[in-house]
Amino acid sequence: MSDLKTKFLEVYSVLKSELLNDPAFEFTDDSRQWLDRMLDYNVPGGKLNRGLSVVDSYKLLKEGRELTSDETFLACALGWCIEWLQAYFLVMDDIMDGSHTRRGQPCWFRLPKVGMIAANDGIILRNHIPRILKNHFRGKPYYVDLLDLFNEVEFQTASGQMIDLITTLVGEKDLSKYSLPLHRRIVQYKTAYYSFYLPVACALLMSGENLDNHIDVKEILIEMGIYFQVQDDYLDCYGDPEVIGKIGTDIEDFKCSWMVVKALEVCNEEQKKLLHENYGKQDPACVAKVKELYEALKIQDVFLEYERKSYEKLNKGIEAHPSKAVQAVLKSFLSKIYKRQK
Amino acid sequence: MSDLKTKFLEVYSVLKSELLNDPAFEFTDDSRQWLDRMLDYNVPGGKLNRGLSVVDSYKLLKEGRELTSDETFLACALGWCIEWLQAYFLVMDDIMDGSHTRRGQPCWFRLPKVGMIAANDGIILRNHIPRILKNHFRGKPYYVDLLDLFNEVEFQTASGQMIDLITTLVGEKDLSKYSLPLHRRIVQYKTAYYSFYLPVACALLMSGENLDNHIDVKEILIEMGIYFQVQDDYLDCYGDPEVIGKIGTDIEDFKCSWMVVKALEVCNEEQKKLLHENYGKQDPACVAKVKELYEALKIQDVFLEYERKSYEKLNKGIEAHPSKAVQAVLKSFLSKIYKRQK
Repeated sequence: MSDLKTKFLEVYSVLKSELLNDPAFEFTDDSRQWLDRMLDYNVPGGKLNRGLSVVDSYKLLKEGRELTSDETFLACALGWCIEWLQAYFLVMDDIMDGSHTRRGQPCWFRLPKVGMIAANDGIILRNHIPRILKNHFRGKPYYVDLLDLFNEVEFQTASGQMIDLITTLVGEKDLSKYSLPLHRRIVQYKTAYYSFYLPVACALLMSGENLDNHIDVKEILIEMGIYFQVQDDYLDCYGDPEVIGKIGTDIEDFKCSWMVVKALEVCNEEQKKLLHENYGKQDPACVAKVKELYEALKIQDVFLEYERKSYEKLNKGIEAHPSKAVQAVLKSFLSKIYKRQK
Repeated sequence: MSDLKTKFLEVYSVLKSELLNDPAFEFTDDSRQWLDRMLDYNVPGGKLNRGLSVVDSYKLLKEGRELTSDETFLACALGWCIEWLQAYFLVMDDIMDGSHTRRGQPCWFRLPKVGMIAANDGIILRNHIPRILKNHFRGKPYYVDLLDLFNEVEFQTASGQMIDLITTLVGEKDLSKYSLPLHRRIVQYKTAYYSFYLPVACALLMSGENLDNHIDVKEILIEMGIYFQVQDDYLDCYGDPEVIGKIGTDIEDFKCSWMVVKALEVCNEEQKKLLHENYGKQDPACVAKVKELYEALKIQDVFLEYERKSYEKLNKGIEAHPSKAVQAVLKSFLSKIYKRQK
């Protein structure tokens, strides 16, 4: 494990014990144990890319100058706030989607002792973020900007989730609702803001930057986030469940996935009829028919072409940025996700 | 309807239309309609006591001086933030408790078109609070204190809910876990902070006060909140469903209610056995047995005595407060809840 990841996980233990002894609440032994177990089950088990990228980005913005141990701790703490936010979204999404596995283990709400308590645990995870921020950033000049940032990004994520849920679940399943612009809007709000913009925005605030001066950075990161989610949609269908840690069910769940949106765009009338008949059904035979159609339409090649073009476009945008340090931040993000398998 | 309530509801319409046109998100027509309907269904339908009490309290702190229309709007906006917070908790609690009715209508998640989307709607409601605060308080000297206040109170409420859920639902139903100190801790955190302390704290911040100088006010309001929840537990059993707008199910749901805690305190071994056998069962016969026992133990009289004593104690505390204006605020709260039927 990298030194950074080791350090990052040390900071998790510090933050956890602060939360387990938060003076704003009188824990019972049972509730403190519950919280301890809930945090370990849901927070640190992911790839930690979002969290670690706050520290990476902050280092790059410092142009290689050594971080003080205090700076390192604070950057890790902000990184963990994003991992807490992610954990909160995942616990809630799994309940709403009725998912079964997450990060290679049963979803939290699927544990017999947990059930619907998971919804409140999600709320607790969300509430830990301002606790962490208050404990470590209350005196900083950028404290209020941090609070506003996390609030706005959470709002945008929940709003993206809202469009996703109502287009997917409300009314009769009607594929004709699905289009690239709709897909773009969903993933921009549901994923791109918190996964790509938020880590860099945290690093910029810690560096004393005013986020209003970095709209261009935001736009590039949002584009990257959309590309990332298209990869996710692709991996849900063609990724290795062992590697991505979950079994994809976008087809069964009638998800507005980039795969089906592209298929609808390039297919003929007869194939469209087949999609309408088989998309969003639990029956494995229907799922197989949809996947055969993806094969026939060579959606995999369409994806590879999309990936190449996005990479090119993103690189152009990055090269055009005035600051070399910011360029380095954006390039390191792009290199982490280009042609990813998980 | 009182002029204040009319004004308060006007402010709701203003805040709602701001949220339906929030520049931080690109609504689709469907999602804007959904949000509109969701807000009207869940936010304004309650007694509005918490929200209105922000305006009442602020007026009393101003010692009768006329409020400017700007002050009135801001006090109403803070009041609505508390109503939004309440709506968020109720939508979530109803999902977790599997409730059926709320405020005299089906719970939001029970509507066929809604279902699990209600969990995300709860999250949206919660996210509206910082949007409202940012829209109207971003420039105020007390803006950061408002954010910290709402964050801390939400954290305490969710933590109280956590103890309630794990003592009620986890492991075998064991009445011996239930006691007055546990009941007190649950209701203090789950109800008192957001229902009683929060409205007054909002009014104090708007008046330019530092909350650290008002710990005594906080303590009195927390005591009042606990008394309020004991009334709630009483009304769940003996209130008129038509009047309180819901059918009480604390006995069926094995809730750590003041009623059962008191019953356990005063009952003999044989009666305790009966409680253990019948409490927390859906069977109406079991519920009836528990209610008969409450009758035999005269829990109603015990409650009336508790109510009298609490009222006395709270009045003493209020009289002792140095500021007449603060006394007036606390007295108006107490008068609103003393011997309430709903």
